[in-house]
Formats: sequence, C-alpha cells, structure tokens
Amino acid sequence: MTPVKRRGEFELIAELFAPLSKGEPGAFALTDDAAALKPKPGHDIVLTTDAIVAGVHFLPDDPPATIAQKALRVNLSDIAAKGAKPRAYMLTAALPETSDDAWLKAFAEGLKHDQKKFGLTLIGGDTVATPGPLTLSVVAIGEVAQGRMLRRAHAKAGDDVWVTGTIGDAALGLRILRGDDLGLSERHRASLVARYRVPEPRVTAGQGILAIAHACLDVSDGLVADCGHMAKASKVGIELRTADIPLAAATQAAIANERANLTDLLTAGDDYELAFTAAPTDRARLTSLAAKLKIRFTRIGKVVKGKGVRVTAQDGAQLSLDRSGFTHF
Amino acid sequence: MTPVKRRGEFELIAELFAPLSKGEPGAFALTDDAAALKPKPGHDIVLTTDAIVAGVHFLPDDPPATIAQKALRVNLSDIAAKGAKPRAYMLTAALPETSDDAWLKAFAEGLKHDQKKFGLTLIGGDTVATPGPLTLSVVAIGEVAQGRMLRRAHAKAGDDVWVTGTIGDAALGLRILRGDDLGLSERHRASLVARYRVPEPRVTAGQGILAIAHACLDVSDGLVADCGHMAKASKVGIELRTADIPLAAATQAAIANERANLTDLLTAGDDYELAFTAAPTDRARLTSLAAKLKIRFTRIGKVVKGKGVRVTAQDGAQLSLDRSGFTHF
Repeated sequence: MTPVKRRGEFELIAELFAPLSKGEPGAFALTDDAAALKPKPGHDIVLTTDAIVAGVHFLPDDPPATIAQKALRVNLSDIAAKGAKPRAYMLTAALPETSDDAWLKAFAEGLKHDQKKFGLTLIGGDTVATPGPLTLSVVAIGEVAQGRMLRRAHAKAGDDVWVTGTIGDAALGLRILRGDDLGLSERHRASLVARYRVPEPRVTAGQGILAIAHACLDVSDGLVADCGHMAKASKVGIELRTADIPLAAATQAAIANERANLTDLLTAGDDYELAFTAAPTDRARLTSLAAKLKIRFTRIGKVVKGKGVRVTAQDGAQLSLDRSGFTHF
Repeated sequence: MTPVKRRGEFELIAELFAPLSKGEPGAFALTDDAAALKPKPGHDIVLTTDAIVAGVHFLPDDPPATIAQKALRVNLSDIAAKGAKPRAYMLTAALPETSDDAWLKAFAEGLKHDQKKFGLTLIGGDTVATPGPLTLSVVAIGEVAQGRMLRRAHAKAGDDVWVTGTIGDAALGLRILRGDDLGLSERHRASLVARYRVPEPRVTAGQGILAIAHACLDVSDGLVADCGHMAKASKVGIELRTADIPLAAATQAAIANERANLTDLLTAGDDYELAFTAAPTDRARLTSLAAKLKIRFTRIGKVVKGKGVRVTAQDGAQLSLDRSGFTHF
C-alpha cells in the first residue's frame, strides 16, 4: 500500500528481469500475473526454496553478482541433490534503499551468467522495498523422471557414504572475509572466499547418480548435521572417518598452520556438496562417473544399523561434537 | 551461517508446518530438500509469487492468523485470475525476534484454515531470522487445462469490461486501522477492516469464467492501474464509467459522509477482485454464473481501439487521475 517513490516495479522488471525470461514461452516475458509451465511428459516437477539474508547468509558488501549467484546456487544445490534437471526459477527480492540501479544491474548480470551456466530461466517473482536487510528468496524448479526423485530417506545399512568435492572451504572463506588471518597465500585465500561466495551446485553429479544412489542430500548445515538428517530420515546410523574427509589444498594449509581444525569444518555449513549413499557394488561405476564429470567423489564412511552419526578420528578415537551443525531458525 | 539461538528450523517445521503438508505425498511431510509434484495429465502448472512486508502490505500488529491468510490470498488471487485451480504452495518466512511461539501457532492456524477453504497443501518453504520486518513470500501453484491459462493480453475491442465484488473497501479499511474517522457504524468499520486484512480471492469465479473471458487479471494495484496493465498488454484502450463501479454499502456510506471519494478508491490498491473482459454475447452466461457462484459480477466499461484507460464520470466529464495506482518497487 505504501507508494514507493523511486521507480516502479514494472519499469524495473521490464528493463532488467524480462530478458532473463527468454526461452520459456510460459513466462510471458514476466508481463502476466503468473507463469504456465507445460510439464515434460513422464516427469515430476521438483520444487525447492531457500532464502538468503544479508548479514546472515552472505555479507552485505559482497559483490552483487555473487549475491545473485549464491541465491540461485543454494537452491540449485537442492535440485541437484534430488537428481533433477534445473528448468526455471522465481525470485523474490526484498530490497533496502541502498540497492541503486548500478547494484541492480550487476545483480541481474549475476543471474544471467548462472542461467546460462545451469540452463534455467526466470519465470516470475516479486520485488518489494524493505527497511530491513536485503533478503532474496528463490524457488528453483526442476524435472525428474516420474517417481524417481532422490530422497534423504533411502539409505540402507551396508551402503557406502560418499561426498562430492571438498568440505569446510566455505566456512574458512567466511572467516577470511571477517578478517581472520589463516596464514594462507593470496591464491588460497581467494579460492576459499570464492567457495563461500559462489558455491558450486553439483547438478551434473546429481543427475549422474540418479540411477545409482540410494539416498542423497546437499550439505548446507554442516557435514555431520546433514548426515544426521539422512540417518534420521532413513532410520539408520552413519559412521564417518575423518581421515577420508576430502579437503582442498587451501584448507589443508590452514589446518597445517593450526588456524583451523577439522572438527569445526565438519560442523560448519555452506559446503553445498552432495552427500549420498550407494551399494558397495557400485564403487567402480561411481569412480568412473566422477572421472567423466571431473568432480571429486570420495567415500567417507558407511551406513550401519542403529541411529545417529559417529565420527572416528585417525587414531581410532571417537570425536565428540558438541554441536551437530548450524540450524537456521 | 549465524547460528540462531532460539529454536531449530527443523523442530519448528516438524511441529507446526509438517501437518500442513498432509494430502500431498510429494511433499514428503517437509522432511526432504524438495517436493515432487506429479502433474495432472493434460494440465499446465501455473506458478505465481507475491511477498508481503510488515508495515508495507499489512500492519505489524494485525492478528497473526490474518497475516497468514493475506500472504496466501494475495497469491491465490493471481491463481484465480489465471483461471487455475489451486493445488499447493511454498512459504518463506523471514521472522523478526518478536515472532514467539504463540504468534507462530496462531499464524499456522491461519494457514490451516485457508488451506482447507481453498483446497491447497503446503509443500515446502524456508524460515530465516531477520533483524528487519516480518516478510512473507508465498509461491502458489495451480493447474489449468493445457494452454488455456487466462491472460492479461487477450482483451479485444468491443469486449465488455467486468469486475467481481466491490472496489475500494480495503483502502478504506487501512485508513480506519490508521485511525481515520470515516463516520461509519461499527459494523461498517469491521467489514472494511476485514476486506483489508483478509481479501477474498475469487477462485471459483476465475475457474468459472475460464471458458468465457478473453482477458483477466486481479486488481491489486488499483482498478485504473490494473485496467491500464490489461490495456497495454492487449494493445487496446479501456473506458470505465464511474456510475457503474460496484461499491459496498460501507464504502457508499463513507462517500456519502464526504470522508472518501471515488477517484481515490479507483486508484487505491488491495482490492483483490478480478477484472476481466468478455464478448457482449456472453452477458447472460456471466450473469447466470455470478448468480450460481453468489459473487457479484458488474459490467463497468468497454474495450475500445486505441490505448490507455479513460474514466467517465456520471455527468459525462472525463476524470483526471494524477496517479494511476500504487506501484510497489
């Protein structure tokens, strides 16, 4: 009801966002009240939504393009974890007064870049003014063969537990942005900051493991917490071995400098890697899939009867984790 | 990344929101990363999203149940305008510290009430903490026969322009909540406040006119502004007659008291009625549909060649509207 003095929603949408809807006829160039998606025959529509808030999930002075990319990618990570192919998204932006035209233009460029990279189209959204922090809510829409969506709940005792990529980098990237000295080279610092600002949703891996994995989710709350969610949903236990956790060279260097420790990294968030389980008989298939996709797949543990997550250190001692991961309210 | 001290997202979702997902198996009781919707054969999926912000689209001290209802209903109004049948929704809530358990419980009750009334199910969402105002972003999902979604763009010169319900009530309801004395009875005041807090999305009307109407949208930015959007999208002009604008008894009383004027009401927002166009040969069908649905349908003007919106007063003078409606940034 409050008239906003700056610019009209319609003008802004037309200029910056309408071109992002090209390629999906049912988006009607964002000129209608709604989009109409024609479902792909034999497929289910997969929908997921995650919001990110300035000062909570990203830093207010992060580059606008990487903020846009992060808003999309945390959602694409969920689409990936379900084995679905990304198709479209909707974006709701609650913008503070500081979002000027230059900021918005750079933000739209970030969206454009990732749309092309991940093959998706903007089909709708809403833009509201807020006296609060910048808040971006994205709904990502994907497609998966009917009834085949990967679930958290299908881990089986005896399965291997796998994870894509490396763990803990984003948490260290945030520490660097907050001014912590981890004793790293400029190149290592930049690589960790990039992992925090622009996560890499594993969409090709998710689609690749669709016919192989039993259970899958994306690691956003911390590896131990998310394995806990999977264990609970599947009514099984999960055993992880610290020695097998994949770490980036920069993260290994921070640990070697005694500026980071593995326990913290296992319970930090924002990894946006996939954790999944599969039968031991599928090890060779998964190894060859990883090579084909050029994505690291690492076996980090086992699914067992029981419940909860146990983490065993290199010396055989069991890690005591006083927090199982951040939970956003 | 910031741990929130109060309660975990998972706990809150399980207690209050998970029961709201009952009836849609693909919601997986909100325990997975995403929902999987099996499309209804022969139908398109219709998606729309609107966010509401405390202090902008509702008042911070509005009852939590009506805030929940308004968040849903502004979206259902768009689903209605497209002739679609509501099926599901996702809800992202950015909650300030003041949202305690009692508030959240009452809020969830509001959702539950409207889910039952409109036949839809919660299939996902996200909850984040914010230092800013309460912000609710809903994505409503409906279904419509393939390729048949009602559009803004299909008004034809010679069509009648129709509107459901009455115009201007919500704007007066907001004035009452802000302390304006409109010289009305308690019953009239309550009816206008209810129209502001809990709009009535015309879902049965939208589905009813699907095979009759040429163009349709919902009136949220103000009748004149929204007719302007329809005229622009359809490349036609629209002529409205003030004498024919349907007004509630309470609104008529406020005008009679000289505390409100029609021009302001035509350019205020938040009506959430449907404006649509249809061939003059369909007048009898529409009148009988309105009677069957027990919803007022009123012919308020004509579609003409040309462009823009002209509003003609009872004395034949043309109204000069210095603003065509609020636009939310």
